[in-house]
Amino acid sequence: MCGISALILADQSASACPDLFESLGLLQHRGQDAAGIVTSGPKGRLYQCKGNGMVNDVFEQLQLARLVGSIGIGHVRYPTAGSSSTSEAQPFYVNSPYGITFAHNGNLTNADELRVYLDKIAHRHINTDSDSELLLNILANNLQKTGKFRVNEEDIFTAIKDLHQQCRGGYACVAMIAGYGIIGIRDPHGIRPLIMGRRKNPAGFDYMFSSESVVLESLGFTDFEDVKPGEAVIVTQGGNVSRRVLVTGKEATPCIFEFVYFARQDSIMDGISIYKARLSMGEALAEKVKKSFGDAMDINVVIPVPDTSRVAALQLSRRLNIVYREGFNKNRYVGRTFIMPGQQTRRKNVRRKLNAMALEFHGKNVLLVDDSIVRGTTSKEIIQMARDAGAKKVYFASCAPPIRYPNVYGIDMPTRQELVAHGRNEKQVAEEINADKVIYQDLKDLVESVRRFNPLIEKFDTSVFDNCYVTGDVDEKYLSHLEGERSEESNSRLSIDSDCVGLYNNYQQNK
Amino acid sequence: MCGISALILADQSASACPDLFESLGLLQHRGQDAAGIVTSGPKGRLYQCKGNGMVNDVFEQLQLARLVGSIGIGHVRYPTAGSSSTSEAQPFYVNSPYGITFAHNGNLTNADELRVYLDKIAHRHINTDSDSELLLNILANNLQKTGKFRVNEEDIFTAIKDLHQQCRGGYACVAMIAGYGIIGIRDPHGIRPLIMGRRKNPAGFDYMFSSESVVLESLGFTDFEDVKPGEAVIVTQGGNVSRRVLVTGKEATPCIFEFVYFARQDSIMDGISIYKARLSMGEALAEKVKKSFGDAMDINVVIPVPDTSRVAALQLSRRLNIVYREGFNKNRYVGRTFIMPGQQTRRKNVRRKLNAMALEFHGKNVLLVDDSIVRGTTSKEIIQMARDAGAKKVYFASCAPPIRYPNVYGIDMPTRQELVAHGRNEKQVAEEINADKVIYQDLKDLVESVRRFNPLIEKFDTSVFDNCYVTGDVDEKYLSHLEGERSEESNSRLSIDSDCVGLYNNYQQNK
Amino acid sequence: MCGISALILADQSASACPDLFESLGLLQHRGQDAAGIVTSGPKGRLYQCKGNGMVNDVFEQLQLARLVGSIGIGHVRYPTAGSSSTSEAQPFYVNSPYGITFAHNGNLTNADELRVYLDKIAHRHINTDSDSELLLNILANNLQKTGKFRVNEEDIFTAIKDLHQQCRGGYACVAMIAGYGIIGIRDPHGIRPLIMGRRKNPAGFDYMFSSESVVLESLGFTDFEDVKPGEAVIVTQGGNVSRRVLVTGKEATPCIFEFVYFARQDSIMDGISIYKARLSMGEALAEKVKKSFGDAMDINVVIPVPDTSRVAALQLSRRLNIVYREGFNKNRYVGRTFIMPGQQTRRKNVRRKLNAMALEFHGKNVLLVDDSIVRGTTSKEIIQMARDAGAKKVYFASCAPPIRYPNVYGIDMPTRQELVAHGRNEKQVAEEINADKVIYQDLKDLVESVRRFNPLIEKFDTSVFDNCYVTGDVDEKYLSHLEGERSEESNSRLSIDSDCVGLYNNYQQNK
Amino acid sequence: MCGISALILADQSASACPDLFESLGLLQHRGQDAAGIVTSGPKGRLYQCKGNGMVNDVFEQLQLARLVGSIGIGHVRYPTAGSSSTSEAQPFYVNSPYGITFAHNGNLTNADELRVYLDKIAHRHINTDSDSELLLNILANNLQKTGKFRVNEEDIFTAIKDLHQQCRGGYACVAMIAGYGIIGIRDPHGIRPLIMGRRKNPAGFDYMFSSESVVLESLGFTDFEDVKPGEAVIVTQGGNVSRRVLVTGKEATPCIFEFVYFARQDSIMDGISIYKARLSMGEALAEKVKKSFGDAMDINVVIPVPDTSRVAALQLSRRLNIVYREGFNKNRYVGRTFIMPGQQTRRKNVRRKLNAMALEFHGKNVLLVDDSIVRGTTSKEIIQMARDAGAKKVYFASCAPPIRYPNVYGIDMPTRQELVAHGRNEKQVAEEINADKVIYQDLKDLVESVRRFNPLIEKFDTSVFDNCYVTGDVDEKYLSHLEGERSEESNSRLSIDSDCVGLYNNYQQNK
Repeated sequence: MCGISALILADQSASACPDLFESLGLLQHRGQDAAGIVTSGPKGRLYQCKGNGMVNDVFEQLQLARLVGSIGIGHVRYPTAGSSSTSEAQPFYVNSPYGITFAHNGNLTNADELRVYLDKIAHRHINTDSDSELLLNILANNLQKTGKFRVNEEDIFTAIKDLHQQCRGGYACVAMIAGYGIIGIRDPHGIRPLIMGRRKNPAGFDYMFSSESVVLESLGFTDFEDVKPGEAVIVTQGGNVSRRVLVTGKEATPCIFEFVYFARQDSIMDGISIYKARLSMGEALAEKVKKSFGDAMDINVVIPVPDTSRVAALQLSRRLNIVYREGFNKNRYVGRTFIMPGQQTRRKNVRRKLNAMALEFHGKNVLLVDDSIVRGTTSKEIIQMARDAGAKKVYFASCAPPIRYPNVYGIDMPTRQELVAHGRNEKQVAEEINADKVIYQDLKDLVESVRRFNPLIEKFDTSVFDNCYVTGDVDEKYLSHLEGERSEESNSRLSIDSDCVGLYNNYQQNK
Repeated sequence: MCGISALILADQSASACPDLFESLGLLQHRGQDAAGIVTSGPKGRLYQCKGNGMVNDVFEQLQLARLVGSIGIGHVRYPTAGSSSTSEAQPFYVNSPYGITFAHNGNLTNADELRVYLDKIAHRHINTDSDSELLLNILANNLQKTGKFRVNEEDIFTAIKDLHQQCRGGYACVAMIAGYGIIGIRDPHGIRPLIMGRRKNPAGFDYMFSSESVVLESLGFTDFEDVKPGEAVIVTQGGNVSRRVLVTGKEATPCIFEFVYFARQDSIMDGISIYKARLSMGEALAEKVKKSFGDAMDINVVIPVPDTSRVAALQLSRRLNIVYREGFNKNRYVGRTFIMPGQQTRRKNVRRKLNAMALEFHGKNVLLVDDSIVRGTTSKEIIQMARDAGAKKVYFASCAPPIRYPNVYGIDMPTRQELVAHGRNEKQVAEEINADKVIYQDLKDLVESVRRFNPLIEKFDTSVFDNCYVTGDVDEKYLSHLEGERSEESNSRLSIDSDCVGLYNNYQQNK
Repeated sequence: MCGISALILADQSASACPDLFESLGLLQHRGQDAAGIVTSGPKGRLYQCKGNGMVNDVFEQLQLARLVGSIGIGHVRYPTAGSSSTSEAQPFYVNSPYGITFAHNGNLTNADELRVYLDKIAHRHINTDSDSELLLNILANNLQKTGKFRVNEEDIFTAIKDLHQQCRGGYACVAMIAGYGIIGIRDPHGIRPLIMGRRKNPAGFDYMFSSESVVLESLGFTDFEDVKPGEAVIVTQGGNVSRRVLVTGKEATPCIFEFVYFARQDSIMDGISIYKARLSMGEALAEKVKKSFGDAMDINVVIPVPDTSRVAALQLSRRLNIVYREGFNKNRYVGRTFIMPGQQTRRKNVRRKLNAMALEFHGKNVLLVDDSIVRGTTSKEIIQMARDAGAKKVYFASCAPPIRYPNVYGIDMPTRQELVAHGRNEKQVAEEINADKVIYQDLKDLVESVRRFNPLIEKFDTSVFDNCYVTGDVDEKYLSHLEGERSEESNSRLSIDSDCVGLYNNYQQNK
Repeated sequence: MCGISALILADQSASACPDLFESLGLLQHRGQDAAGIVTSGPKGRLYQCKGNGMVNDVFEQLQLARLVGSIGIGHVRYPTAGSSSTSEAQPFYVNSPYGITFAHNGNLTNADELRVYLDKIAHRHINTDSDSELLLNILANNLQKTGKFRVNEEDIFTAIKDLHQQCRGGYACVAMIAGYGIIGIRDPHGIRPLIMGRRKNPAGFDYMFSSESVVLESLGFTDFEDVKPGEAVIVTQGGNVSRRVLVTGKEATPCIFEFVYFARQDSIMDGISIYKARLSMGEALAEKVKKSFGDAMDINVVIPVPDTSRVAALQLSRRLNIVYREGFNKNRYVGRTFIMPGQQTRRKNVRRKLNAMALEFHGKNVLLVDDSIVRGTTSKEIIQMARDAGAKKVYFASCAPPIRYPNVYGIDMPTRQELVAHGRNEKQVAEEINADKVIYQDLKDLVESVRRFNPLIEKFDTSVFDNCYVTGDVDEKYLSHLEGERSEESNSRLSIDSDCVGLYNNYQQNK
């Protein structure tokens, strides 16, 4: 998962950089691996700062001051599937034609094919493994075909329409054409989110695209509208907004995992409050728990695994009428586990980041609530911590159904073999993670928990649960190929090559 | 002035980086402002490290290790005329078509025209003020027109031939096409130098281009040949060498200032030993001194202004039969004056870098010998130091004739108003710098001192002395425009903008 | 407030550094301003790394590897009252006598007097404004008086006993004598906390001192015992433990603010679980709320101000039987407000770090629960956020009573004029922060909420609430003097001087 | 060898730092390993910046600005014998008594004895292997014995007199007592140099101590006087100067190697111009060459090995009436060989730093002139370069006699086994370094070349040539011990330990 932003100010003498910087901090939960901003200043000159690391580490005061210009785009990166060389920071840039910069969130499923096309047909050198570089060059090539000195909205819509025909996968993108304006793009299935808003000021309206509404809200934007699946939105310097849905007839299937885990709870995505959806998941899960225990219900306390599951767990406890306690204390000076590379350190890191409060566990039957169970290693360690703290019985409830298949649309999931629920039923998972019982949300309940807040969305991307890939091109062969790449990648992750700095993507590291 | 190198190894599993790094250290005297290396590794992937500063500061062990691949190019930068934004380090890169990287030494005289062409006709975004970016994009555009999947030598020669017709000025260039090979290019007048050599090893021949022969010699290359004026040389991965003179009928006019000041004395350039040329200059200057003093010769000691003038001064002292003494001691931990920005610090820096030894000055009539007099401020300060050290009379001899006009082919000279000899005769210069007498080399003697070692070269670029610009496009209007830019530039040199990092040119700073 | 640790391993060939590093991460909430570790290696040689910044920024892998030795002490710093020069990182060091390193948490109230003594009588140069340097030099001077080649436990106890007579204030300290062992010291009133534990391993017992039990617990230590007020504990290399209460007859008065705000909820301090105490505070506060509202109770929802007040708020909501909601979402990539210097940015930072979820506020009467109200600016901003999110009425409950007086024992409180409750009653505070009602905990209820878990503690330091300073030397004159220093300090906080690196305290910054 | 400086300004509101910084740059040739400055500001507070590296790398603008105060001392370090841990930068500091900082140039021969004394008798912890820390603590301990609140000149002279009785070796030192003044100290034999001068300005006289006169001269000081052997000079804030020779009856024996190699040629040391002494060495060596060749003289050209030998070689060529040529060109962007650790890289570095100009070697019999021959490896490589460049015969003349014994007074010489002349006569050395002939200066000629300019100095330290150690405590046992340490040291030079940062000596590294 990644986070993206694009901003265009009405006042061309103002600086887009501070708000873009702020936006990346607000999107930091979507990617802590790298960050970057590019702005377009006077005469269309571009300025950039990007690098590996957290937003606060990548950008220093002095560097931000150099990012002049009233237009810009930004990105935070979370390493995604298929990009074996995980070290390139976005945005990316091509100078031909026009000077285009580009950042995206998502993943392509036909990257290999595009790579050949760009080499053989478009004669464009691709210097990284990033899908962003592919998308950017496809777009650039499509625009180049116009042969025009200056493109107009029509040209751009055409180029993006072609891009949608060429590229398959989940992708939400922002692009900037030097001296022209910014563009928001969302894939035909709307798998990855993108929202826009505007902010009135004396000079007119500022416009911003971002992955989550919380960014727009925090920066004082209003009139939020989701970019629609298959839609592109162009905002020119001068404040002209053009919107067009370029692909129709495709099923809209937003990624349900945004609602379960990725998005901030104070965001609203495709019209659905993440917060409400999670409350709903807690309620539905409560029913499942009731059914699962029946008369044998002996839970003494509901304890969330911080932080994501807190909302659902609180609602679940109310519905079950069982006391809710924050039995785990989080050491906030240790990073998020999901991001740590390698299994071994992961185990250790759970203990480093969570501390079980004996008072809440001792002699009790506890129901731990988490958003999901992926590898199972974290859950297993947490359950062990609960037992070490004196719990009698440890039950484990997951707001998401069993994850049994990889994600190919931009979430960095492990291979099938590494997924604890792959090939295991609830009971077997319970055994594997040493829980007295595991209760999974049912998929239909999950979908309903989200969908009830916007019934217009008929379907979600739920491929990690049901192996149903909406782009239609993901088969056993593709997955095997992907898993091969990933295991190679994990071998070479610390090698010099994977840390190498591609050329387009050279960054200015602070320090 | 800048320094450039390109290297292609016969053994494709070997690393070009160590030799490129060494080559930039050996070219450091040609530019201490920035440095960069790009290599092409497996599958044509490009790796780069560049940044502002000295070679030893820009490249660190770890970063060098990441520059994999058996082909590469490198650059050291000296800020040149017309590039108001002096912060971009070379090599430059475009990904379309093919992935081309490029570095050059020199200056274009029709940059403004090319800039318009690239925008309006080629639709290529230019993000810096560097001529290199222009040259690279002209080349890229010419290659793109072929529309071919893979270009061949013929295509490249054609593209460069076109480039020569489009670009005017002095330029020696190295380029690398990812996965293909390296190219050496020299402008039709051969104003800027470029030499090539080869090195036998078990896998075949390695080939290298460099600004100076001392690089090739130090790295064990042999069979040196200058790239001819208007010639392009292509060396492909696989070791195929193609040479072609693409422009004929133009007068070859190598820059004479290389021989006077810029090149290392142990280099051989266009067949001429710099060292021998400087000995010769000393001899000729001795004759001029004799003539100038006539019977009134009262010089007690000849003292060189270190370091460049030492060779000429020693020979001059022998010819005059006057004792030679190293009366100035150099503090080698202070940088070269020529490079320091701003007049005020310059004055102070002379005193910081040189120390006059009273013993050699006290009570004597001294003849100071320097390679040239530019602004006159350094000379004036040195003369004052000699007087402070007790000299009775201080004469000042310059191996070069009076510098009265700007250099537009890559040497960073001040504007005419800042040149002490502009509008002044010898006597007036002597007054201005407070010398008892100033003796300038005659231009014909300077030319003859160099030319005698290679009579095939009929002419040199001597524009700074005689206002004669070989490209034919440098007139009063051009110079005025240039000088306007430069004074603007000097005002803004420390501004944020000039330090800004252009996009293509983002560098990875060490630490 | 600061955090301190000291560790001595049974296995002298093992390295104390990893656990010390981990301990500082676990104490990071007690100080995010600077961090440092000193270890004692073979032959008593000392190794150190310290610097300004967060633990993860100050220490890098390579530097940690250099901190050899099986004994060491560590420190995280929070700028405390009276240290106008806030830039010196601890531990501190003196080489005469014996080589002593030292770190402390707290504040002295007779620093000026000690400063004169050290200059005039002890002839010891004090190079910083830190109380730690004073305490260390007092200790060193007392030890030096023994005139012994090697001191023994008796000498050390005597020296510390003298120190207690010389120094006044609140201080918990760890010291290390090179090649000898570590020492834990707690002031006669036990105002600042210090706990010790041991860990069995094949070589014997490891011993550790730390500010909080959570450190010991996380690192696998057991048999926790608080260092008693006025007690010193010496652990020598070899594992000999000597404990002695050196001052008797003084009232033990642990700082109650540790329980309200500073300590981690999973710590146990002076036998009292912070977590339980906070639950208790929530219950007592619920009663106060009930009483305050009487029949006019119209609260719809209880919302904690994250993170500290969550425990109390949850319990309060249960007691009131009003629904509990996490209405504020925290952006965890923005730092803790309390630490930010200057009022203006503070206001802005509240909005940056918290986001109000309209759903939970809209149309409701909300009771916000926070641990305390200090300046009131944060509370005011939060209340405004609640109103902006649509709250009808906003009530504000504080787990702590009104803070009306400065803290002089180590907590960085503002001057009296800056405290919103200074000279204001509840109603006036409510007006000032724009709350519909403010409910403060009663002091006796707060004390009882804590004390009930360890009735042996008869009294706490509650000076910020009742102006009752247990050391008996804090009068109007002292406070005025202090406030003068602080306002001076705030003026110069960003000056060069305050950032200057004192000599003893030079640090090795990473990067 | 190291370089030291101390400065006290008449105007107490002025800053000593800029001149100290400049002084270290001028002393950089004496040590390129580390650098440091400590200043004493208002209220005697001390400020420091030190670190490993060259002066320009250690000090950054911002850091220099923080070094406030009108008094200060500085140091550049060259790793000296016996300090196995070469990583500690000077000045050193002790806070008890008074706050004393200290820097020195030299080496003690009874360090082990002092180390025991400081531990057992003075109870002072020594945390590094540096002799400076020993000297400082001896001084501090002697001052502490006075028990005075403020010491006076008499106390200081007594303390230094005692120090001279306790310490043996060669040492020139500068010390600063916080808020009091600076002190210059020179060992009883005057082995290491120290000179002082004063500079008039409106506020009175500034005073400076430095290792070399060139520093004083460059900074505008006059009235130079060498600190005499065994003398101490105290300059107090207020400008009172007290001088006293504390030890008499010892033979003054300045180190002759300063004149041969270390000192800058524009310095005057103990009344002797280094430049004149080197001219003299050239003359004497010319006579030796004449005698050595007799009638068989077939030298065609005299070529110096740059840079030190240039002066002597030029004079030698005049005396022999053989043409002088600069046949080696130096690549000034590669460091001085002498400092490079390890034999292997040394060999390579000669080739990297020097380039032989074939023109001056081809077909000629050349006489290479160098200041000395130490290991012989550099000489051997240079001779080979001359041969590779086409020389017929290569003769090698050394301004210094054969070096056969280690230096124990501060010059980092290799062990006896590594010295090419140890156990070899001229002919054998010639064979070893592959010269057609080696001509060494005679020791008496060397001494006379220096002594003739100040006949008051009856003797020099010439121990490396004649095994005669003036301190009387250097015997076979000592040398064996020393050599044992050094070979250990060379093994561990790159180990973590040797890079470790001692505690007193923690430095603030630039980024």
